[in-house]
Amino acid sequence: MPERLGDLADRFDCELRGDPDIRVSRVATLSNADTDALSFLASDAYQAQLPTTSAAAVVLDARHADAPPGAVLVSPNPYALYARIAAVLHPEPAAPPGVHPGAVVDATATVDASASVGPNAVVAAGARIAAAAVIGAGAYVGPDCVVGEGSRLRPNATLVRAVTLGKRGIIHSGAVIGSDGFGNAMTDAGWLKVPQVGGVVIGDDVEIGANTTVDCGAIDDTVIEDGVRIDNLCMIAHNVRIGAHTAMAATTGIAGSTTIGKRCLFAGNAAAVGHISICDDVVVLGRAVITHDIREPGAYNGMFPAEPARNWTKFVARLRRIDSLQKRVKKLEGK
Amino acid sequence: MPERLGDLADRFDCELRGDPDIRVSRVATLSNADTDALSFLASDAYQAQLPTTSAAAVVLDARHADAPPGAVLVSPNPYALYARIAAVLHPEPAAPPGVHPGAVVDATATVDASASVGPNAVVAAGARIAAAAVIGAGAYVGPDCVVGEGSRLRPNATLVRAVTLGKRGIIHSGAVIGSDGFGNAMTDAGWLKVPQVGGVVIGDDVEIGANTTVDCGAIDDTVIEDGVRIDNLCMIAHNVRIGAHTAMAATTGIAGSTTIGKRCLFAGNAAAVGHISICDDVVVLGRAVITHDIREPGAYNGMFPAEPARNWTKFVARLRRIDSLQKRVKKLEGK
Amino acid sequence: MPERLGDLADRFDCELRGDPDIRVSRVATLSNADTDALSFLASDAYQAQLPTTSAAAVVLDARHADAPPGAVLVSPNPYALYARIAAVLHPEPAAPPGVHPGAVVDATATVDASASVGPNAVVAAGARIAAAAVIGAGAYVGPDCVVGEGSRLRPNATLVRAVTLGKRGIIHSGAVIGSDGFGNAMTDAGWLKVPQVGGVVIGDDVEIGANTTVDCGAIDDTVIEDGVRIDNLCMIAHNVRIGAHTAMAATTGIAGSTTIGKRCLFAGNAAAVGHISICDDVVVLGRAVITHDIREPGAYNGMFPAEPARNWTKFVARLRRIDSLQKRVKKLEGK
Repeated sequence: MPERLGDLADRFDCELRGDPDIRVSRVATLSNADTDALSFLASDAYQAQLPTTSAAAVVLDARHADAPPGAVLVSPNPYALYARIAAVLHPEPAAPPGVHPGAVVDATATVDASASVGPNAVVAAGARIAAAAVIGAGAYVGPDCVVGEGSRLRPNATLVRAVTLGKRGIIHSGAVIGSDGFGNAMTDAGWLKVPQVGGVVIGDDVEIGANTTVDCGAIDDTVIEDGVRIDNLCMIAHNVRIGAHTAMAATTGIAGSTTIGKRCLFAGNAAAVGHISICDDVVVLGRAVITHDIREPGAYNGMFPAEPARNWTKFVARLRRIDSLQKRVKKLEGK
Repeated sequence: MPERLGDLADRFDCELRGDPDIRVSRVATLSNADTDALSFLASDAYQAQLPTTSAAAVVLDARHADAPPGAVLVSPNPYALYARIAAVLHPEPAAPPGVHPGAVVDATATVDASASVGPNAVVAAGARIAAAAVIGAGAYVGPDCVVGEGSRLRPNATLVRAVTLGKRGIIHSGAVIGSDGFGNAMTDAGWLKVPQVGGVVIGDDVEIGANTTVDCGAIDDTVIEDGVRIDNLCMIAHNVRIGAHTAMAATTGIAGSTTIGKRCLFAGNAAAVGHISICDDVVVLGRAVITHDIREPGAYNGMFPAEPARNWTKFVARLRRIDSLQKRVKKLEGK
Repeated sequence: MPERLGDLADRFDCELRGDPDIRVSRVATLSNADTDALSFLASDAYQAQLPTTSAAAVVLDARHADAPPGAVLVSPNPYALYARIAAVLHPEPAAPPGVHPGAVVDATATVDASASVGPNAVVAAGARIAAAAVIGAGAYVGPDCVVGEGSRLRPNATLVRAVTLGKRGIIHSGAVIGSDGFGNAMTDAGWLKVPQVGGVVIGDDVEIGANTTVDCGAIDDTVIEDGVRIDNLCMIAHNVRIGAHTAMAATTGIAGSTTIGKRCLFAGNAAAVGHISICDDVVVLGRAVITHDIREPGAYNGMFPAEPARNWTKFVARLRRIDSLQKRVKKLEGK
């Protein structure tokens, strides 16, 4: 669906420099764009591509507005403006309202007439699917779960039980929300399962990535506040609370009963141990492990970058002799 | 289903201090309990909440029995007693016996009349589902798999092929058991797949977490002994053997052909390389990697806690100069 | 299906020492083989088992050809020869051509008559399933996806959308290919989703492990070249490119827009940060994290092996005092 640049500038209240009658029909990278494509510059790393791009229009900030040969849409936040225009040019395919004949919906579940339940999806007893929600093919909505207005479960996503998902959320394929927390009591006869009776409460505008798991609470609920973004293959254990607008990159793991503040960022494969509290506005760098309460906003790190294996082996061997080095220095001091 | 405290004390053979006619209908945390709730104290960290809890009854050990205002159930292992009572108050919902019409069961599979096969589940050729087993919605039981008495596959769990699951096991949603091990032979034309013909043998009372993967053996079987507990998103590679009552927290990874003893504990994101042997009663702390045979029980560690990024950067830079430091000390010694 | 050794030697053009009329019906390890089994020696670690094996025949290289009591098949690459014979003795079960009545195939999808679509699988609008492809039970093939000739989706695998899978590929159970990349623009109102409009292009002879995720590209495609092998629970982020014949062991993670060369090896839980380039023939050892461009082939490491916790604690404490040690050495030098 081609869009006039003039219409886009009006709709998103941004400055257009160029012919308002030019139409764009898709997004493209600066280097691969052709003349019906819109591109963007959100990182200076790509600015060298501006003068030679074939894009019909480029979304960028005022500093770079003169560089491209074609039209520009100027915004102080070009990445966000690009995201808004991309959503217009590439809308989510509409899902047909109603329950597919191959789906199974329990008689005690309620599905809004405007919601879509896809082929071979299952909606269990007492579940509620709100208006405009989309339950993808093969997805499962367990007992007493709620899928809020406009939220979407991608194919083969699973809400196990007692999950309340707010509005406009996305649960990606393979994600499992509301599985039992890892609660085991040791006895003379071995481990005894500790029933996990809490649920999961997820706010509005939350996105949870493919094959991520979020466990239900042991007694009280696991809580994910509004606007949180969780990437693929993350693990959120029982009774974790994640503050609003926190984002976690892939394979991040948060152990049980840990509370995380608002607007935190976890880079890839970061982690936090259980039963701690992390304040607002903390950045945990890639693969770092937070092991105690964090009360100061800012960046935290704990990762050694890889290096050529021979160097690394020597480095570790030297470190391992630090005890001896300390003794030698002490001996020298004694002289 | 409210329960009399007197009945619970009789049933679980523990000491009741308080009115035996008081009834509890659910479990709650000490701080959130109301007067029909039972709570527990299993960690001294929460003992300050005892005097003010509204719980009708608290499960705890003798040291704390006088602290709560209400009734107490006294046990030397309060966490286990709590688990047993919680299972009474919050029983697993019964699954209806029989095969749901939306499920597909191969003509050569056998399903006990007391077993439950949920909507859109699939049971393949030669599979056997024992008495009181529950195959959740969308779950898959592959060729020649056996699901033992009372075992449960949660919705969208997968037993790929040749998996024998013992009694009273739980395979959580999204777990994949019996997928091919990672066997590849290099040839001039690239990787050649090495057929993985072994199976997976799982003992009784085993629980395997959401989205965890357990690969089938290359030739002999991958083995998980009785009472093992594996959390979410763990990886158990081909021909691993895990000893009875070992527990592994989330995102633990065990590489191929490694043998792990009984009663070991792997904390979150711990790991072991392949082709090694770890003795009984080993504790691997969070994110530590075991790289060689372990013959001594005890705790093992290998993780650096995160710290403020600026400190960490300086710390790593100083460590990297250890070579120069050694040379300087040697020079001083030479004087 | 028992096979004559003479026939196997002819078929795979290798030297047979022993009676060509001996038949083998299955593969076995050296120590567990009985007299109708074929075994192999691919690592010297097991050579002590050769003299006592009961195997009817052993695949090995010329150096060990005299050790076993029975017949031998001699090859310079015994592991590859073993793999080829194992595939003959243990063939993949044939999947019945056609669409299972419990499957749902969109009217606009095309399924070759020789392809198999299993029970409760779903094939969405515009998808194409080529000749001899196998879509396992409960698997999902999303809009506009292509499954190439002879490729197999294991049960409950998911191709979300816009995935092109080449020939003879295997996507294991629980894998999710083509889920949205993690693209979020910060705004005053919180995170704004950046539409992910690219696809995933996968070459021929690629295998992707259970519960692994491969995200679609943000604009251009995520690319996995021919012959790549990816194990379980790996994360391949948007716009990653993985060169031909690269192999990644379980739980490896590659962050967005990183390019990886041909014939690289990633050991378990290795990782690479985003927006970097790694040349051909790089080996990343277990749990190492590549943080910048790699231009030299060879092995890279960054992992500290675990040790007894008490030792580790002392070691870390000593390292943390390296600052003080440097100062003391400086002071000594000043004297």
